[in-house]
Amino acid sequence: MTTQPQILRPASYVYGQWHANADGQTLYDAVYGRPVAVISSEGVDLAQALAYGREHGAALRKMTFHARARALRALANYLMERKEDYYQLNLLTGATRRDGWVDIEGGIGTLYSYASMARRELPDERFLPDGKVERLGREGTFVGRHLLVPREGVAVQINAFNFPVWGMLEKLAPAFIAGMPSLVKPAPQTAYLTERVVRDIIASGLLPEGSLQLVTGDPRDLLDHLQEQDLVAFTGSAATAARLKVHPNIVARSVPFNAEADSLNASVLGLSVKPEDPEFGLYVKEVAREMTGKAGQKCTAIRRAVVPRHLVEAVTEALKKELSKVTLGDPARDDVRMGALVSVEQRERVQETLQHLQKEAEVVISGVRDLLGGDRDKGAFLDPTVLLCPNPLTARGPHELEAFGPVATLLPYDTLDDAVRLTKMGRGSLAGSVVTHDRAEAGELVLGMASSHGRILVLNRDDARESTGHGSPLPQLLHGGPGRAGGGAELGGIAGVKHHMNKVAVQADPTTLSAITREYVVGAEVREDTLHPFRKTFDEIQVGDSLLTHRRTVTEADIVNFAALTGDHFYAHVDEIGAKEGIFGKRVAHGYFLISAAAGQFVWAAPGPVLANYGLENLRFVEPVGIGDTIRTRLTCKRKIRKDLRAGEEKPTGVVEWHAEITNQREELVATYDILTLVLRERDEFDPPAEKGAEA
Amino acid sequence: MTTQPQILRPASYVYGQWHANADGQTLYDAVYGRPVAVISSEGVDLAQALAYGREHGAALRKMTFHARARALRALANYLMERKEDYYQLNLLTGATRRDGWVDIEGGIGTLYSYASMARRELPDERFLPDGKVERLGREGTFVGRHLLVPREGVAVQINAFNFPVWGMLEKLAPAFIAGMPSLVKPAPQTAYLTERVVRDIIASGLLPEGSLQLVTGDPRDLLDHLQEQDLVAFTGSAATAARLKVHPNIVARSVPFNAEADSLNASVLGLSVKPEDPEFGLYVKEVAREMTGKAGQKCTAIRRAVVPRHLVEAVTEALKKELSKVTLGDPARDDVRMGALVSVEQRERVQETLQHLQKEAEVVISGVRDLLGGDRDKGAFLDPTVLLCPNPLTARGPHELEAFGPVATLLPYDTLDDAVRLTKMGRGSLAGSVVTHDRAEAGELVLGMASSHGRILVLNRDDARESTGHGSPLPQLLHGGPGRAGGGAELGGIAGVKHHMNKVAVQADPTTLSAITREYVVGAEVREDTLHPFRKTFDEIQVGDSLLTHRRTVTEADIVNFAALTGDHFYAHVDEIGAKEGIFGKRVAHGYFLISAAAGQFVWAAPGPVLANYGLENLRFVEPVGIGDTIRTRLTCKRKIRKDLRAGEEKPTGVVEWHAEITNQREELVATYDILTLVLRERDEFDPPAEKGAEA
Repeated sequence: MTTQPQILRPASYVYGQWHANADGQTLYDAVYGRPVAVISSEGVDLAQALAYGREHGAALRKMTFHARARALRALANYLMERKEDYYQLNLLTGATRRDGWVDIEGGIGTLYSYASMARRELPDERFLPDGKVERLGREGTFVGRHLLVPREGVAVQINAFNFPVWGMLEKLAPAFIAGMPSLVKPAPQTAYLTERVVRDIIASGLLPEGSLQLVTGDPRDLLDHLQEQDLVAFTGSAATAARLKVHPNIVARSVPFNAEADSLNASVLGLSVKPEDPEFGLYVKEVAREMTGKAGQKCTAIRRAVVPRHLVEAVTEALKKELSKVTLGDPARDDVRMGALVSVEQRERVQETLQHLQKEAEVVISGVRDLLGGDRDKGAFLDPTVLLCPNPLTARGPHELEAFGPVATLLPYDTLDDAVRLTKMGRGSLAGSVVTHDRAEAGELVLGMASSHGRILVLNRDDARESTGHGSPLPQLLHGGPGRAGGGAELGGIAGVKHHMNKVAVQADPTTLSAITREYVVGAEVREDTLHPFRKTFDEIQVGDSLLTHRRTVTEADIVNFAALTGDHFYAHVDEIGAKEGIFGKRVAHGYFLISAAAGQFVWAAPGPVLANYGLENLRFVEPVGIGDTIRTRLTCKRKIRKDLRAGEEKPTGVVEWHAEITNQREELVATYDILTLVLRERDEFDPPAEKGAEA
Repeated sequence: MTTQPQILRPASYVYGQWHANADGQTLYDAVYGRPVAVISSEGVDLAQALAYGREHGAALRKMTFHARARALRALANYLMERKEDYYQLNLLTGATRRDGWVDIEGGIGTLYSYASMARRELPDERFLPDGKVERLGREGTFVGRHLLVPREGVAVQINAFNFPVWGMLEKLAPAFIAGMPSLVKPAPQTAYLTERVVRDIIASGLLPEGSLQLVTGDPRDLLDHLQEQDLVAFTGSAATAARLKVHPNIVARSVPFNAEADSLNASVLGLSVKPEDPEFGLYVKEVAREMTGKAGQKCTAIRRAVVPRHLVEAVTEALKKELSKVTLGDPARDDVRMGALVSVEQRERVQETLQHLQKEAEVVISGVRDLLGGDRDKGAFLDPTVLLCPNPLTARGPHELEAFGPVATLLPYDTLDDAVRLTKMGRGSLAGSVVTHDRAEAGELVLGMASSHGRILVLNRDDARESTGHGSPLPQLLHGGPGRAGGGAELGGIAGVKHHMNKVAVQADPTTLSAITREYVVGAEVREDTLHPFRKTFDEIQVGDSLLTHRRTVTEADIVNFAALTGDHFYAHVDEIGAKEGIFGKRVAHGYFLISAAAGQFVWAAPGPVLANYGLENLRFVEPVGIGDTIRTRLTCKRKIRKDLRAGEEKPTGVVEWHAEITNQREELVATYDILTLVLRERDEFDPPAEKGAEA
């Protein structure tokens, strides 16, 4: 039993102030139908809120990606300590604790994920060089590269009622990492939970002021005040998306509008699956879980169960059995598996859609079960319902009408082609799934469905234990889908961050491009000084620092000894006859010998700030090196990545990436690559600072 | 002098047929105002054309990226041979041969570029695995990766009048490579030139039927028939873009609408530049060129010249001198530098805008010059005009009103901050430029301008010779910009191809994901057989083919010998004292020794199909290997990239990428990397097929 709370007055947080109203729209709890909160945005100056966000975005943009990541991780820790408060309010929305886990801990988990991806995949900078350097002229004096910089506006985030915490945090995290402040507009029904989390975020002081604003209640004239650098990220119904994205101001200013709309997601049981296979049971469990989790109020839930015609009866029976285990009632009770819809209005809408669906499909599983707590009349309960549409290739309802509750329709099919066609009749879905252990069948279905889906799960005995399920968006993977699903794209790892940035192509000479991007570009001027670059600390090393080594003549003895030592007796190195007939026409040095000898040329042998060479990228052997050729190596600092001190580490370090080029006596490029080194941030006692004097 | 041609009747090419009308809209040539063509789309069934494109897209999608690239390259060759025909028609549009070069050869060059990028950067497949494999569970049984597949609709391409050839080809090329058929709707004014090129493309038979359709004349109800898998790529005015993108059918079906709109592009002369610097002259020439090229009818042209206040007079004088060299008249004449606007209506529009601009700016360069051929009254000539806006930070006109002709406005500034502010007052631009040799200044301007630009050129003495100029979009770089520029994105290398594809996240177990993507995923099942994988030809090798080598114990002698041979005496390998204090706490083997010894373990020494190891990627040394540790290596085929036989090559080859993992006696991962090998497609005589019998 939930205890009756006092009436909440969730407020707005705008231009650095909390703003609440005594009167407004009354919200009712989903389980007993008692008044729970009053919300109103009256008196909030939305133009001022947007202007405030834009102005305060400057402070956020001054932080580096890594600094933002640290703030986000600290925030995740802070919220995790307070999660039980959120679970309490979650129950009022009709959701069980398990549903709340997806919303609350899933949301906080998204903060952790973005914090970690940002530190792993982004530089410790305020902008992001993207892709490779493009050579735009024959001589290499004109080059180009893409950069991403934060949009200098506000990310307006309009969320749906079903995930009041996750919905906010999954939009906030990539925006914040990108350097863009957020203005959150939660759906009214569950705004009190969103507000509760925002209260903690603001109280924590962990995000720079202005990074997060909240408008609780009617967004009124918000969209009228958007500008070119703002963007809108919307989650909700396709109809609302269609209405908002044609707002004249959004259109006139080309404000990006990202829409995530509910879609009629399908799950296909493979044609090869037999009732006794593990995949049969996995399928039934997955459909039942997707139907009843969050009482089916998920934009990714399975609405269409695409099943081989000969298995329809068996699936129906098994599903009936599985659904019979689903207990309904007050989600505060431990013995309740499914709670209520968010409101009685929502239940009415679902029941109405159910009526429409029955024109082309018949109900095969339903029945009113006893409630374990909750109020049948005033609460928003609805029993799981399964329909069967006998001729789904000609029907329209099951592919168009979404009952946003514990409802799914079985669609029988005969061939894999038909199964693919059925999934596509949804005209674009956020998520799809394929349950089979036959890999060829999985491939055919996945590639067939790919053009109309944002995410497809292949479920089988091999991944079932670790599978996160058909309906779960993950921070690393795209959340979005074409057509009916809104055509938007959220999450997807760093791609989600990039959606909040402007991409610009920069064209310049290599030296200027290096200076702007802080990454060495081949052809740029380099700096050489008397102190060996490996003797410099991370902080002393500068992009463009360079060393040209002494020369070394590669001899027959080198090749022979290298073959003997490594065991690599490939004919191109050691077999005069085979090598003559081979592509080089002569014996040549091992490629690995060249990069090893190059290390011999550029390494500083004594202990120093460079601790280890831990990796290598982009190695290409360009020209063969024969007996008698003389090589030398140029090593140039390409970029630096600062690292935070981790638990267990004693000394702060950073990663320095060096570009290496080995040339021969004709100054032809022989090999090119990048090496990754771990370098101390501060000079150690074994390499006394006196040495540094030699540099001057 | 252009000779009076017969009246052209450019037709539409839809559902495999040419469709012309005798009556319709009459077009006039830009130079003498004589009737040149009649166009009409009457009787064309646009719904049928779209349906035909969608249906025939299947054939295009069956081709691989490389097959499409070959077709595109062949088409480029075919059109290049016919370019003089296009240059003839180009003159009627008012453009000089030099203007036509940008349009015609620039357009054909875009085909070459995309053909070459596709073969270099895309696999020889029908879909594109994108980004890295994401491990989604602790045990590695559940992984995810993004795939891109062609959208299964039609790319509707609505083009502007100013680049009738390039405008079509720069949209066609990435769509075609992606596997998406195009339906081209040229602007009426210059549709006869577009039609001429399409006629040749269709006649060539080089593209699969249905890959390209053309609607000449009014697009009528075209947008009513779009579906979810179609997309629209639009170039033209911001007003038209705003009107089209709210089309109810586009909105309801979430049809992607990419808009490229003219923008008020700025070029900034650096504050550090002195009149005697090379950059001063470069700036003046660039502004003059951008104003007069294509008679200023370029969406990327410089409209706002942002100049240090103290240099305004000097710039005006120099610009006056530079512009005085621009001869005006019939573009067919060799002595004419600038031709006419596309039509007298267009000239009227520009003159009207000029009037409005004069409310906040005064004309400082103008004057009617003598025409070298052409008709002053009936032709659409307009003399270059430069305005000066004394208070640009408070003015609105120069930042909002675009005179789409040979017109620019000088905007004086005092500080770099103000210069950045001025560029941003355009509210989003396709292109910007910065002319300075001071790299810090360039960096400050570029990073300041980055959020509101799609492309920024830094011009100075170092890159001027190879610079392609402020106004030239390049296939490798983004073409598009935020806000006023339409918020779209075209070109940008392979990104332009991806805009025509649907991205889908696929989640599965590693073996299934390998089977679907045809790339080995770590953790997937591998195949081992008795034939060494290096003895197999490219065609015989399969993704997942694997070899687990014999073991090797790393000894002190190995380390000592390797140090001696390579000259790499780094203390972590050879200095017992230093190594003890170092991060490994003991002497360890050289990383390069490990990968060299691994090659010694897996290489097949005799001549065989594997010709060379030409590169290496993603090398990470995970655990140190000490004296007495025993290593072994697993080599698994990760992916295959078929290559076409190039001129000078005797035998067909392919690239095989192998994933290598070195482990120690505790089965801990020691090093992981991918190696690139060049492999013969067919078995050579030196490795008789009899060997293959051993495999069975």
